[in-house]
Amino acid sequence: MNGKMRAIVKHHRGVGAELQMVDIPQIKDNEVLIKVKATSICGTDVHIYTWDEWSQSRVNPPYVFGHEFAGEVVEVGSKVTNLQIGDAVSAETHLVCGECPQCLTGQYHICKNTKIIGVDTNGCFAEYVALPATNLWKNPKEMPFDVASVQEPMGNAVHTVLSGDVAGKTVAVIGCGPIGIMAVGVAKAAGASQVIAFDLNDYRLDLATQMGATTVVNSKNEDPLEVVSKLTDGNGVDIVCEMSGHPVAMNQGFKMVTNGGRVSILSLPVRPVEIDVTNDIVFKGIQVHGITGRKMYETWQQVSRLLKSGQVDVKPMITHHFPLEDFEKGFDLMIQGNCGKVVLIP
Amino acid sequence: MNGKMRAIVKHHRGVGAELQMVDIPQIKDNEVLIKVKATSICGTDVHIYTWDEWSQSRVNPPYVFGHEFAGEVVEVGSKVTNLQIGDAVSAETHLVCGECPQCLTGQYHICKNTKIIGVDTNGCFAEYVALPATNLWKNPKEMPFDVASVQEPMGNAVHTVLSGDVAGKTVAVIGCGPIGIMAVGVAKAAGASQVIAFDLNDYRLDLATQMGATTVVNSKNEDPLEVVSKLTDGNGVDIVCEMSGHPVAMNQGFKMVTNGGRVSILSLPVRPVEIDVTNDIVFKGIQVHGITGRKMYETWQQVSRLLKSGQVDVKPMITHHFPLEDFEKGFDLMIQGNCGKVVLIP
Amino acid sequence: MNGKMRAIVKHHRGVGAELQMVDIPQIKDNEVLIKVKATSICGTDVHIYTWDEWSQSRVNPPYVFGHEFAGEVVEVGSKVTNLQIGDAVSAETHLVCGECPQCLTGQYHICKNTKIIGVDTNGCFAEYVALPATNLWKNPKEMPFDVASVQEPMGNAVHTVLSGDVAGKTVAVIGCGPIGIMAVGVAKAAGASQVIAFDLNDYRLDLATQMGATTVVNSKNEDPLEVVSKLTDGNGVDIVCEMSGHPVAMNQGFKMVTNGGRVSILSLPVRPVEIDVTNDIVFKGIQVHGITGRKMYETWQQVSRLLKSGQVDVKPMITHHFPLEDFEKGFDLMIQGNCGKVVLIP
Amino acid sequence: MNGKMRAIVKHHRGVGAELQMVDIPQIKDNEVLIKVKATSICGTDVHIYTWDEWSQSRVNPPYVFGHEFAGEVVEVGSKVTNLQIGDAVSAETHLVCGECPQCLTGQYHICKNTKIIGVDTNGCFAEYVALPATNLWKNPKEMPFDVASVQEPMGNAVHTVLSGDVAGKTVAVIGCGPIGIMAVGVAKAAGASQVIAFDLNDYRLDLATQMGATTVVNSKNEDPLEVVSKLTDGNGVDIVCEMSGHPVAMNQGFKMVTNGGRVSILSLPVRPVEIDVTNDIVFKGIQVHGITGRKMYETWQQVSRLLKSGQVDVKPMITHHFPLEDFEKGFDLMIQGNCGKVVLIP
Repeated sequence: MNGKMRAIVKHHRGVGAELQMVDIPQIKDNEVLIKVKATSICGTDVHIYTWDEWSQSRVNPPYVFGHEFAGEVVEVGSKVTNLQIGDAVSAETHLVCGECPQCLTGQYHICKNTKIIGVDTNGCFAEYVALPATNLWKNPKEMPFDVASVQEPMGNAVHTVLSGDVAGKTVAVIGCGPIGIMAVGVAKAAGASQVIAFDLNDYRLDLATQMGATTVVNSKNEDPLEVVSKLTDGNGVDIVCEMSGHPVAMNQGFKMVTNGGRVSILSLPVRPVEIDVTNDIVFKGIQVHGITGRKMYETWQQVSRLLKSGQVDVKPMITHHFPLEDFEKGFDLMIQGNCGKVVLIP
Repeated sequence: MNGKMRAIVKHHRGVGAELQMVDIPQIKDNEVLIKVKATSICGTDVHIYTWDEWSQSRVNPPYVFGHEFAGEVVEVGSKVTNLQIGDAVSAETHLVCGECPQCLTGQYHICKNTKIIGVDTNGCFAEYVALPATNLWKNPKEMPFDVASVQEPMGNAVHTVLSGDVAGKTVAVIGCGPIGIMAVGVAKAAGASQVIAFDLNDYRLDLATQMGATTVVNSKNEDPLEVVSKLTDGNGVDIVCEMSGHPVAMNQGFKMVTNGGRVSILSLPVRPVEIDVTNDIVFKGIQVHGITGRKMYETWQQVSRLLKSGQVDVKPMITHHFPLEDFEKGFDLMIQGNCGKVVLIP
Repeated sequence: MNGKMRAIVKHHRGVGAELQMVDIPQIKDNEVLIKVKATSICGTDVHIYTWDEWSQSRVNPPYVFGHEFAGEVVEVGSKVTNLQIGDAVSAETHLVCGECPQCLTGQYHICKNTKIIGVDTNGCFAEYVALPATNLWKNPKEMPFDVASVQEPMGNAVHTVLSGDVAGKTVAVIGCGPIGIMAVGVAKAAGASQVIAFDLNDYRLDLATQMGATTVVNSKNEDPLEVVSKLTDGNGVDIVCEMSGHPVAMNQGFKMVTNGGRVSILSLPVRPVEIDVTNDIVFKGIQVHGITGRKMYETWQQVSRLLKSGQVDVKPMITHHFPLEDFEKGFDLMIQGNCGKVVLIP
Repeated sequence: MNGKMRAIVKHHRGVGAELQMVDIPQIKDNEVLIKVKATSICGTDVHIYTWDEWSQSRVNPPYVFGHEFAGEVVEVGSKVTNLQIGDAVSAETHLVCGECPQCLTGQYHICKNTKIIGVDTNGCFAEYVALPATNLWKNPKEMPFDVASVQEPMGNAVHTVLSGDVAGKTVAVIGCGPIGIMAVGVAKAAGASQVIAFDLNDYRLDLATQMGATTVVNSKNEDPLEVVSKLTDGNGVDIVCEMSGHPVAMNQGFKMVTNGGRVSILSLPVRPVEIDVTNDIVFKGIQVHGITGRKMYETWQQVSRLLKSGQVDVKPMITHHFPLEDFEKGFDLMIQGNCGKVVLIP
């Protein structure tokens, strides 16, 4: 397809971004062109927008950013067999090599040569995006586009929560950003007997309640360890989903987990964290799981089915919708934190 | 405690049982005496009552049968440290040796020297029962006795359903006796995206619906394989919980499971079953799990928490309550099949 | 590459095969051409050669059969990135669709649309074979071609033995064809404390001994269950690898496994097998694993490393080498059974 | 049994210990009295001997210390059913409560109320020791007493190495004290394709070679990360067994593990360790396992069978034998580090 389109461009090595008219991307024979119907803002996008240290070292403006979306296929490359014009799709954000030992053993999500859509390549904050057909996940026609757009971050939540058994277990979710809030819903859907959510922001704790948390704790006002002790007869929780990235909160997670428990970490602390390995990992005999991306495509299958069956309802978590033009309002909200997921409509 | 009590006694080697006055059992120093508040009828009890082939070879009348119950501790042996008078308890039915390789590796539920309460020893269809303290599970005070009584068979359901991952999976439950009906509820609580229940009895299928089945199939009226194919885009279900014991139904289970799926078998077919090993097990790359008893006491912990948290509500499945005296009404109902669980109140 | 080559052609719908001169295959842009240096005869090839019931229903002569081999890349398609001329390679035999639910969740080996090299397409009993680059596994330069050729069936052995824990366990291998013999070596290498091998053929039992079996049993002369009972203090083995396909032997496997054990079945019994589900699966609480193909490519990585490190030495199992022309000698040996693996050199 | 016996007594709150004549312990009805035939010195004993910070806060002299041993049952309590006079036994060191959630779910090794033999109770550096029958493991009659004595620390090695798959994997063992050296042997026996051992002491690296290490690295002389990179084509190892307790070495372990790998930590660093959670745990998608004690009694079964089958030979690791009287020589050796295991013979 030829022509121009509106896109949010990270235009310079500095704070902010610009709405620009750019060329509609051309597809290769293994790619498809997708008309973006909804695209949501990830924490990573906020890093790029605010031009933090990590962005400065990783990102090369000018380019179109954004990686969470749902859309419709409008053009199909000559070698593509699994998709047709009109298909509703979302994209797995990891572009993997297929040849490293991890890829060869089916662990694509930890490919050593991963590129990230919207970070290392042009992304989806635009009217159209071109992507390899093998990176796309077909959505049910009846799934609303905003819901379909948040499948990618919901995949992080599912990957984290379901990295071990959940049914009949007690679960702590530390950090109630959009992924943490979804983790609450996933834990509940997977049969957790208690889901205790922690954050410093009451707005987000309220969303956690709406997603099914059995207890919410504002760690500014209550001692997380005391609350857990009371709720678990002094035993601690079985599972900690660490989504805050904050060293104090992470260590509270290690303290609150019971002997033999699991700490699944999705967050990315900005510097090394001091951990009491002897008392909090070894003597407790716990497992720590590092979680990144989504299993390709086992996690997508789980996400898709949990949504379709109604076992998880993410709508309370999608708090704001803006036209693409108003992206700055969305980013401002994300920076302040008084929101769940913010969706942009191109 | 001395004195007499009412008890249902399997009094002779033939059909039926009798309400008799018998001695209240004396406890040993590692045992406790429990006042039975509710006791429920298991399929095994029906086998003993109707004096089938299996009972004739295993059971030695006269004795008190029954093994599902909830009650209150009224007397405590001198060596017992984990229980007190007044505690609400239910019992694990397997009396294990603690010394065989299975017990030594924590697999008590498959102890090679297992004895069964109410089969190999006196049971709980009575006002009182004496049991080793290590076989008792403490119940929350607020749990109704009828609910607490069905934890043992619910444990079978939990053990079967949770013998692998469930969240986001499609589950077939074949055979909707009380345990099958509870398996429906457990699968739903554990995040199954579809739960398809099969039986020949509409009364029981209706209970399955009440417990959360997303589809119920009367296999007399509909072809189970066709239904599954339609509901799964021709892929089959991920998990089969086989609870019918019927060779035709069991083979339908093997046919309806998808490649790489799991068939967990709790049922006890009365004779060997012909299975198409090549096409239904090997080429499909599936796993078959034999399930017996409850993991001691991991399964009890799961049951207890699923009930306490409200993730599973077994009340729709407890369809009848009778005074102990009216046990014959209960057995008649069980034989006819138009019931869920039947509870007797001593 | 143009020209003619020697190939063993299944030339008609009947017994036998013919050495013919046929066109060297042309590669597509995602394929490579391999000069075959060694190719080994599989039981499947014998079925095709003897034109049994299964072959009659599946195979369409005339075509080149054979699927186990090692060779050197001599031509590379334009889209191939992972291979170069001169690379030493073997092939995974399963050609998979990449689009079914199994493929999408990384379970390629149970793809619902699997095609088999040398069964559904032209194979490797020839001087050259053309194959998709994504189906090839790169071999170390120093690996002998005959050893490299048996990696594919060794993958079956590895997949079967390692479908659960092995270290410190007792393992029974039932059926000592080439894969069974390799299973013995793999079990030993993986730390099995006892490996008991069963067959009716002393020649093959002798090979099992050479591969590390701690006990070999000719089931014609000794009662397998008695031997196992003696060797395991009456407890039975932890793991059964069923590779005989014979219903009597398979049932002995179910009888000899201990409570909580594992029966991994690779064999393909020609008709349904009667199994005592109640006593041998359910009451025992065992797991039955259907095994087909090799995990792509986790199993290949394991095979490759076990060979390279010397943990498994397959040389005793490779008993015969013939020039391609003498394929009939090889097939005769395989039919009689007095051989391990037979390798043909084109 | 009445009378006096020789015993090594931690006699005061300070450095050292004394050989004293003390009463032979009296058994309770659930205990047995064991004549100690061999007892080995653990790192923990060295801590107590040198009266380090940890000992000062935990240990209450005067008492008999020591917990690794093998001996013969000479007296049996009235309630003991699983042992007889003359049985050869070793002891699990953890005395567990049997009533906490961990014990109730079969995770005895992480019991919240664990007491340690020889730390919290009288131990085995003596002619006799009295212990609960349920804490004893029966040894084969033909097992030498020094070998039987090191089963307890070998259990730590087995628990660490086998906390995940090993066959065909690359394994790094960091820290070659006696347990590290045994971990090398266990990894090799379990099918590891490479076992790379790291230490600063050439004497111990030499023992690692004797136990089967494929490469040994003195981290003073070579860069561990460079060596690993060379040996693994830049991919890193699959498994790290951290047994050094040193923060630098531990972090090297996190750096050298491949994406998706496993770091099993048995060591007890004396203070919190700074870990690059983001890059070394999360982005890599690894699992960290805290390892303490031995699974009761699954690990003992594995140890016993690996020894009995000859899959692991610990003799090279048992470098010194002394009469009990010469315990000071043994402790001196342990402090200097130029030894494997030191065994005392009462």
